[in-house]
Amino acid sequence: MSLVNRQLRLKTRPEGLVRQDNFDLVELPVPELAEGQALVRVLYLSMDPTNRVWMSDIPQYMPPVAIGDTMRGLGLGRVVASRSSHYAEGDLVQGLVGWQDYAVLDEARAKDWVKLPPKPPVSLPTLLGACGFSGITAYYGLTEITPVQPGETLVVSAAAGSVGSIAGQIGKLRGARVVGIAGGPDKCRHLIDDLGFDAAVDYKADDWKEQLKQATPDGVHVNFENVGGPVMRAVMSRMVNGGRVALCGLIANYANGGRPSDDYSVIIVKRLTVRGFLAFDYRDSQKAVQDLIGWVKEGKVKAGETVAEGLENAPTVLNRLFEGTSTGKLVLRVHGE
Amino acid sequence: MSLVNRQLRLKTRPEGLVRQDNFDLVELPVPELAEGQALVRVLYLSMDPTNRVWMSDIPQYMPPVAIGDTMRGLGLGRVVASRSSHYAEGDLVQGLVGWQDYAVLDEARAKDWVKLPPKPPVSLPTLLGACGFSGITAYYGLTEITPVQPGETLVVSAAAGSVGSIAGQIGKLRGARVVGIAGGPDKCRHLIDDLGFDAAVDYKADDWKEQLKQATPDGVHVNFENVGGPVMRAVMSRMVNGGRVALCGLIANYANGGRPSDDYSVIIVKRLTVRGFLAFDYRDSQKAVQDLIGWVKEGKVKAGETVAEGLENAPTVLNRLFEGTSTGKLVLRVHGE
Repeated sequence: MSLVNRQLRLKTRPEGLVRQDNFDLVELPVPELAEGQALVRVLYLSMDPTNRVWMSDIPQYMPPVAIGDTMRGLGLGRVVASRSSHYAEGDLVQGLVGWQDYAVLDEARAKDWVKLPPKPPVSLPTLLGACGFSGITAYYGLTEITPVQPGETLVVSAAAGSVGSIAGQIGKLRGARVVGIAGGPDKCRHLIDDLGFDAAVDYKADDWKEQLKQATPDGVHVNFENVGGPVMRAVMSRMVNGGRVALCGLIANYANGGRPSDDYSVIIVKRLTVRGFLAFDYRDSQKAVQDLIGWVKEGKVKAGETVAEGLENAPTVLNRLFEGTSTGKLVLRVHGE
Repeated sequence: MSLVNRQLRLKTRPEGLVRQDNFDLVELPVPELAEGQALVRVLYLSMDPTNRVWMSDIPQYMPPVAIGDTMRGLGLGRVVASRSSHYAEGDLVQGLVGWQDYAVLDEARAKDWVKLPPKPPVSLPTLLGACGFSGITAYYGLTEITPVQPGETLVVSAAAGSVGSIAGQIGKLRGARVVGIAGGPDKCRHLIDDLGFDAAVDYKADDWKEQLKQATPDGVHVNFENVGGPVMRAVMSRMVNGGRVALCGLIANYANGGRPSDDYSVIIVKRLTVRGFLAFDYRDSQKAVQDLIGWVKEGKVKAGETVAEGLENAPTVLNRLFEGTSTGKLVLRVHGE
């Protein structure tokens, strides 16, 4: 069997939204495995804001993807061939598979991969979302980075998204009053009716700042920030003195070319504590994953995904994160099982 | 004796630097004292960046000064007449005396005033500087807000200024390696030769970013930030992962009309903790003042002041903070003793 591997290689760095022609789609034979290697057929790619950051040549926590390289991306796949004693055909693994059909897994870099139970307790998209990095991010943000306390008001931006939807639900589990910010009446209804948020603010509505004010009569104790820009500025203006910010993402800034668009003054005026964090630092933690799987199975946390199709569409599918046209975790199905 | 009280009243809100004609200088008879009041002859005014903030109609921790009102300002004075049993002629007091010759102190608002020993252990300018709010700010910033540990690298911006010069010296007392950022070779020499800093970076030199890099070979563990803008961005780019920022002031932003000029991304990428604080919150603390007076008298902390003259000059003297033409605490002598 001679397998073809399609790869999306970065051709030019996008400005603003990603264009299909920022990438070349190349077809190559799957490489021969060396001793200690296994071949992984990619099933799902996780579509994350960080993919967009990796395309830009700006300071970040990993080097940017080089021009000509296969796009870096997290995903799940099955081992379909192995010359490693650590991995057997049929193993389900998660790691930086890249935007391609097949990834080569080297046991020398086993620490970069997570072996998952062959028959996982939740669906594969949920494993990438509520019970994967998205859930882990929400979990550590509200427990370790800025623990939210019962009775406090928690505001979550991008609340219908992969991290925000879980953060809001964890906030409820911890006894907070939870206000979500999302785009459009459907998403806002979803937050309240399906996910149990106390209030929702539609940032696409003309009166969204007034909505935010009315939803936070006692101010905001904890801001779980995913967005940045005008939405963040509005939430920061509602913070109580001494409030805390879990700075998780700044999706509004990622495609603006690195222009300074923030204002630190409010941190002084309101004596805030702002803590940045990366779920990446907690990737080895099993506690969060166990808790999240438990909550999902007990129905205490509702997972949700938007599933797009086709490796070749990855560049433009990613834009849905920035256009706000997905709900819950956005994943791309590359191969069916 | 009929005393004349000159008052500097805000006429128009400055943009950028303060102009003399943003103020009216009015002369009025000193008001008759009511029961419970005392008259304070202003000796020194403290010239602080916050004065500039109070002139602007932007969100801040106190209301801005209203057009037509006497400019708000901290200072020291002597009681020269009293109809209060709490205050006697000759008492030395500190409080928001305002930009005027005489302030009326009402015992109903006694909590807004601090009564000082009639013969203080340090000079009056030092009482407003190293042993006043400036010193208190440095003290709490490096003990409570972001305690700096022995062996860590501390960077202090505006390091030749009232707060920065004390912050750097407290950093040395706590065993840190201290790097100061200041404008010009004289100030940089002063930091090293007089104040005991380990290194100094001249932000007016063309190679200042290279100087900063060389002065922080192990990165920056704690940033005591007074400036904001490009200086802050450069320091933030040198922070270690997990570094801490005591966000004390953003003097570069105060006169820029509130344009967003900062970037929160670095807080995420480097997993920083940024804490804003106001010395104002610690104004009742006697511990800091006792420690600071002790250190100054023992020679462990060197106080330094730039003393300007003449109430009428207050608007333009204040600009020296933004032009960088003062060293140590900037005070204005209104009346000699």
